[in-house]
Amino acid sequence: MISDKMKGFVANSSAIRAMFEEGKKMAAVYGADHVYDFSLGNPNVPAPEAVKEAVIDIVTNEDPVLVHGYMSNSGYEDVRGALAEHLNGLYGTHYTDSNLVMTVGAAGGLNVIFKTLLNPGDEVLTVTPYFVEYRAYAGNFDGVLVECAADPVTFFPDIADMEKKISKKTRAVILNTPNNPTGVVYPASVIQEVADLLERKSREYGAPIYIVSDEPYREIAYDGVEVPWIPSIYRDTIVGSSYSKTLSLPGERIGYLVIPSEITDSANVMAAANVATRILGFVNAPSLMQRVVARCCAEKANVGYYDRNRKLLYGSLTEYGYTCVKPDGAFYLWMKSPEEDEREFARKCKDEEQILLVPGRNFGCAGFVRIAYCVSYETIRNSLPGFKRVAESYGL
Amino acid sequence: MISDKMKGFVANSSAIRAMFEEGKKMAAVYGADHVYDFSLGNPNVPAPEAVKEAVIDIVTNEDPVLVHGYMSNSGYEDVRGALAEHLNGLYGTHYTDSNLVMTVGAAGGLNVIFKTLLNPGDEVLTVTPYFVEYRAYAGNFDGVLVECAADPVTFFPDIADMEKKISKKTRAVILNTPNNPTGVVYPASVIQEVADLLERKSREYGAPIYIVSDEPYREIAYDGVEVPWIPSIYRDTIVGSSYSKTLSLPGERIGYLVIPSEITDSANVMAAANVATRILGFVNAPSLMQRVVARCCAEKANVGYYDRNRKLLYGSLTEYGYTCVKPDGAFYLWMKSPEEDEREFARKCKDEEQILLVPGRNFGCAGFVRIAYCVSYETIRNSLPGFKRVAESYGL
Repeated sequence: MISDKMKGFVANSSAIRAMFEEGKKMAAVYGADHVYDFSLGNPNVPAPEAVKEAVIDIVTNEDPVLVHGYMSNSGYEDVRGALAEHLNGLYGTHYTDSNLVMTVGAAGGLNVIFKTLLNPGDEVLTVTPYFVEYRAYAGNFDGVLVECAADPVTFFPDIADMEKKISKKTRAVILNTPNNPTGVVYPASVIQEVADLLERKSREYGAPIYIVSDEPYREIAYDGVEVPWIPSIYRDTIVGSSYSKTLSLPGERIGYLVIPSEITDSANVMAAANVATRILGFVNAPSLMQRVVARCCAEKANVGYYDRNRKLLYGSLTEYGYTCVKPDGAFYLWMKSPEEDEREFARKCKDEEQILLVPGRNFGCAGFVRIAYCVSYETIRNSLPGFKRVAESYGL
Repeated sequence: MISDKMKGFVANSSAIRAMFEEGKKMAAVYGADHVYDFSLGNPNVPAPEAVKEAVIDIVTNEDPVLVHGYMSNSGYEDVRGALAEHLNGLYGTHYTDSNLVMTVGAAGGLNVIFKTLLNPGDEVLTVTPYFVEYRAYAGNFDGVLVECAADPVTFFPDIADMEKKISKKTRAVILNTPNNPTGVVYPASVIQEVADLLERKSREYGAPIYIVSDEPYREIAYDGVEVPWIPSIYRDTIVGSSYSKTLSLPGERIGYLVIPSEITDSANVMAAANVATRILGFVNAPSLMQRVVARCCAEKANVGYYDRNRKLLYGSLTEYGYTCVKPDGAFYLWMKSPEEDEREFARKCKDEEQILLVPGRNFGCAGFVRIAYCVSYETIRNSLPGFKRVAESYGL
């Protein structure tokens, strides 16, 4: 009795989530210490102490009718103002509360902005590999996700291919940097190339092509790599982010959209995003967590923790003979499968070594696997003999 | 540059929300004490102390990686199990964690279930007057909301009209009792009549018509009036509820769906609701609040507080000559406008007396206004002279 669209979705339910569920079952069988679950971007770093302190202080000292009550659909003005100020300090921008919409995580924000922008049949470009849910999010509004190629070594966008894929139906291009699943960070020069192309194409078609910058990993970058603020490079950029990764609050569903005043038709986009938040059933981002992130937005992600994991994992796996993209950001390692069908490789890792990886075709890119290293250092260390045995079995 | 659908929504943006925004502006001009804002169902009763205690205990003593982390899209198993047990104790049912999906408020739950059930063009019936957002929620999935009449005195569903409105496209009937905006509670006999009709029509069309019972006000009923548990009367009932009103947590966006094992195609509906939660961008209900409501689900709503408001407001307004439906539940008073166009009446109340009411046509029923009395007793008391002057100006 379920809808036709949902029949397809249920049948092809996210392999990432399926693996997460399977990981829990395997942990019950083998013991949690003997399952190496690299499937989900669920940070193992606890939320900073400041989050706990803010929660306790707010529920103790602020008016509960305010803290747990309705507010404007876009979120509390003071919260939006605080986040705007924080961004202004970082990027030299001039945002105010009226440029922000608080969202139910970055996923909620993407749905709000696609609801705002897309007519049926409109196209949204993404660079492969990409976060698999983008297709569903665009499809929620009868938009069509169009895949652009990446350079096979750097995994930066292939600008020539992007030009081919842009049509008069293209309403937006999703950029995701630091990238899930590759861990790549696009330098300013690459974003400038994208911007030049989109400016040219926007003029050609007489309508802006927005960049939707999905950047929950913005604050997680290594070795001093700079993550450019894309609105400073391309005017028609809308930013979506969250505190899921930075503050380790993925379950709390707290994020935001930045809709700069400079973008084409900014006032209408802002008004529509406010209404879309309501009619999609989000109504507003969770209220207590809005007030928490206003206080904690300057807290730093525990980059050192992930960096230690990254070095151990990347160092060891390349030493065993695997081919990996060196990650500059986020907490994912993108690794070439030693056999053509990466699902077979993932199955072998799971069945023989209780190592859970996500096959790359779930990100629109077969022949690779994603390894989420937002796990404990011990999990990585203890998984290494298994990775090594598998490498040897392939004769790497 | 916004989508065509959103242009309409922005132009007709919810009058309720518009009034909420206007109320805030008026408070800045006249002072909060001199604006009588009855526009929004934002409870004035603070959340119970138990909520505060649970929040503090959880963030102090539970593992932050668990408390703020991802879990199954349907929610924590232990939380769902606790809520199932609570319902079983109240209604003699046999639900388990696998019958519940935790949702981003009741609004999120309705979107999840409509995404699950509706093909484009499918119809969802509602009884007028009704919560205005139902139309948008069904429309999000290209479903069509069909209005059924209510009895003009009792505001119970007009069964004969409902029969006329049911077609082979009817997939679901929304029941909302205690009702927003009328405050009416449907007795078991009325629900039985609806059930008999739907059973007959489901047989006739060879496909179940689900009742979607939207019941955030279930625990707010007065004078010992019983609120029937609809799944005990009609097998194909899916329940959506939230803690927005009962625990005064509307901003926290925490609710749930009950998908009983007895409904047609239950396993598929459950699986699809789980996936729909993910792909609509909710991902999961806010995690800390899930854990809070598991501990606080047996807390009682402060019905006495609302009852005191109800008695003062209903007693005074009827004394002044207004005609009101006596509310048995929720915290809304449904009042006949003294002039045909209730928008004129509402404007008069606002401009002359700073009293904010919502015109009934926003609930699909002109000629009435909704008065949300989830405000302070003082707000009601201080508004009465204004209501009286307006009554006198109409010669009531």
